[in-house]
Amino acid sequence: MRRMGRSYNWIKMNPAQMLSVGFLILIGVGTLLLMLPFATKDRHHLSFIDALFEATSAVCVTGLVVVDTQTTFTVFGQIVLMVLIQIGGLGFMTFGVLIAIMLGKNIGLKGRLMIQESLNQLSIEGMVRLVKFVVGFTLIAEMIGALILAIRWSSDFGFPRSLYYGIFHSVSAFNNAGFDIMGQFRSVTEYAGDFTVIMTLSFLLIIGGIGYIVVLDVKRNKSLKKLSLHTKLVLLMTLILNILGTVFIFALEYDNPGTLANLPLKDKLLGAFFHGVVPRTAGFNSLNTGELTLGSQLVTMLLMFIGGGSGGTAGGIKVTTFVLIFLAVRALIKEEDEVSLMGRRIPKDLIVRAFTITVYSIGFIFFILFILSITENAPLNVLLFEVISAFGTVGMSMGLTPELSATGKGVIAFMMFAGRVGPITIAFALARRKGKAKYKFAEEKIMIG
Amino acid sequence: MRRMGRSYNWIKMNPAQMLSVGFLILIGVGTLLLMLPFATKDRHHLSFIDALFEATSAVCVTGLVVVDTQTTFTVFGQIVLMVLIQIGGLGFMTFGVLIAIMLGKNIGLKGRLMIQESLNQLSIEGMVRLVKFVVGFTLIAEMIGALILAIRWSSDFGFPRSLYYGIFHSVSAFNNAGFDIMGQFRSVTEYAGDFTVIMTLSFLLIIGGIGYIVVLDVKRNKSLKKLSLHTKLVLLMTLILNILGTVFIFALEYDNPGTLANLPLKDKLLGAFFHGVVPRTAGFNSLNTGELTLGSQLVTMLLMFIGGGSGGTAGGIKVTTFVLIFLAVRALIKEEDEVSLMGRRIPKDLIVRAFTITVYSIGFIFFILFILSITENAPLNVLLFEVISAFGTVGMSMGLTPELSATGKGVIAFMMFAGRVGPITIAFALARRKGKAKYKFAEEKIMIG
Ligand SMILES: [K+]
Ligand SMILES: [K+]
Repeated sequence: MRRMGRSYNWIKMNPAQMLSVGFLILIGVGTLLLMLPFATKDRHHLSFIDALFEATSAVCVTGLVVVDTQTTFTVFGQIVLMVLIQIGGLGFMTFGVLIAIMLGKNIGLKGRLMIQESLNQLSIEGMVRLVKFVVGFTLIAEMIGALILAIRWSSDFGFPRSLYYGIFHSVSAFNNAGFDIMGQFRSVTEYAGDFTVIMTLSFLLIIGGIGYIVVLDVKRNKSLKKLSLHTKLVLLMTLILNILGTVFIFALEYDNPGTLANLPLKDKLLGAFFHGVVPRTAGFNSLNTGELTLGSQLVTMLLMFIGGGSGGTAGGIKVTTFVLIFLAVRALIKEEDEVSLMGRRIPKDLIVRAFTITVYSIGFIFFILFILSITENAPLNVLLFEVISAFGTVGMSMGLTPELSATGKGVIAFMMFAGRVGPITIAFALARRKGKAKYKFAEEKIMIG
Repeated sequence: MRRMGRSYNWIKMNPAQMLSVGFLILIGVGTLLLMLPFATKDRHHLSFIDALFEATSAVCVTGLVVVDTQTTFTVFGQIVLMVLIQIGGLGFMTFGVLIAIMLGKNIGLKGRLMIQESLNQLSIEGMVRLVKFVVGFTLIAEMIGALILAIRWSSDFGFPRSLYYGIFHSVSAFNNAGFDIMGQFRSVTEYAGDFTVIMTLSFLLIIGGIGYIVVLDVKRNKSLKKLSLHTKLVLLMTLILNILGTVFIFALEYDNPGTLANLPLKDKLLGAFFHGVVPRTAGFNSLNTGELTLGSQLVTMLLMFIGGGSGGTAGGIKVTTFVLIFLAVRALIKEEDEVSLMGRRIPKDLIVRAFTITVYSIGFIFFILFILSITENAPLNVLLFEVISAFGTVGMSMGLTPELSATGKGVIAFMMFAGRVGPITIAFALARRKGKAKYKFAEEKIMIG
């Protein structure tokens, strides 16, 4: 049976490995395209390592940049990045199947399983419908976002250019990429107090980061009671983490002259909200990240580490993993045998998976941090911020990225890639070896990793 | 049966809680004694928070100090610290039973269970013999160490004083306390190149930190084959971690003018060896900790986090916990269903415990770090170093301890206490709720936490 089950792999790769290879090919193509003479403006020739870094950052929808996107790249180069972001965000496999659908071909089991992995889905049923929905939802959301931003920016940039800016930043926000073409590494700091820009970007990145499965579940089951445990959990945690993030950033930056201190209260709130929401996992910044207090840096790092919902464009260990660990520790303190939530018992092997993913991630972050501590010349907080940002494919930086050594760039690029495909690979490996366990009570699955 | 099992508790405390209360009482008494006028030298009145910090540091055998031990305390005050270290190191319960033995009284089940917890022992058999052995072994080891140090130092300090110095530092080293009376927070930096001093201290702290259970097992089973898995694991890991620590510190500090660069090769090796061994968990330093490279700081933090063997004077998550996590992650990568080691299968609930202890510890460290990031004004590496040092009851510091705010002192004191009694409490709570599982293969327990 095991052997049989594996026979869907042609060239002996499991879906997670195929996804990795797909991403690698996409990064390779992107690197080549970005090195073309007309991809960069005059006197901005891109070295191989820089092109590789930029392509990896785009495909893995991270947003860390070694060069300023606006001043370095031509419109062609910028569109290459946007396309890499879009393909990376939709999931390489989803994109492959989308092409197949458009060409009118049937999708065999192999194709379905690949998407299943790409989206970290629980069931392989209705996969084609899901893909159609994902693509449609993505395009509609991005279009609405692009229009709002284009209208807002038409007074600043003039019409055709404002539409281009709207599309680029909408795609970047929905896919949680965090790339911007504002110039001088400014991100959206010019719009820190702009309600329209900040709220449009926030809405796009929250929707994109929450995971397609949640969106689909909400669409299918209009009533709150019918929603799956996974959906309820992700929605609740998104709300809680965004509120906590906002409150902590507001409190910790209130007196900081480098960030909120000199802003009117309305802008203080808007800035705190954006920086409470962005670390999971969009990579924009409306405040100067390098000026955040150490407390805010730590809050941001924690949020970046946790990330968003499974099966979306977000990175990190995922909110569900974090909740399970929280619940497991709480159960321990209360000396309870079982971990339960909202009237459901959580399977024990899921707890083990959550712990494994978390500890593995922390160990990995520490290892990369250790390498950078030797190759780079920067304080620990700046290094750790950069590593966690790469791991969670967040893209925020305290300013280290352009200063990285060639080795540092390679290591961070590797971390972005590992942060993107790693959790899916681990989840896949863990799911495969899981045996059939007998439980007494009703239980329900949650997606983690 | 469960109810019956709990009836050994008089006033409804479990052994772990009784241990905590015992430590708290000891800290309270120590605080009072250290605040006595004749405990400190002229013009060195100790504030309550400083006395509390020092007493906690001594009882929890940590070694972090807010005042310099030699210049602040009278011989009376220093002896109070030494006695607190000795009682803390032997374990409060062990000490209680030792008194009972000396008074010729029988030790009931309750007493035995308390020691079991205090030593994190696996079986309650032969407990009395164990306590006798522990006390005897401790005193003999300390006596030998004291004599060697006294002879070495007789030329520096003259005879009666060199014996006092020998005893103090031998007790401090064997109990992994890291307190010194060299003056000016110098620790043993004056003896960085002194083979006798460095090797004597290293030997004492390795033996003390390895855990009495290992020492007892080695004593009982002279042949390597008969040793328990736990013993073999702890010995092997102690060797590996000490070698790795030495190699990493040597490589990372070789060119550092603040530490090894200006020393002859022999002293470079000796310094690297001491700083590879000390973080688990002795708290002495022969090099200037504040001058270590960031890479060495991270290596030291990792070693401090791992700590020593269970049931000894060491802190940290313990080497066995670390190994289990390493093995679990390796099994995951190799897609193996079972975690095995040296031909033995490791029970799954032990893996879960190891993960729980690790994640809980990391979360706790992060929480305390976050508080200090707000209350203190120091860079992240210095803060994190301090927090992990307190958690692992190590006692190394990059110089922050005397600069801590009152809140910071309270928080670090709390962390030292939690680092000392926390892992035992968690291990106890986890062991209690463990059900009877059915396993197919021979398995063997290992102590963690
Ligand atoms: K991102
Ligand atoms: K110590």
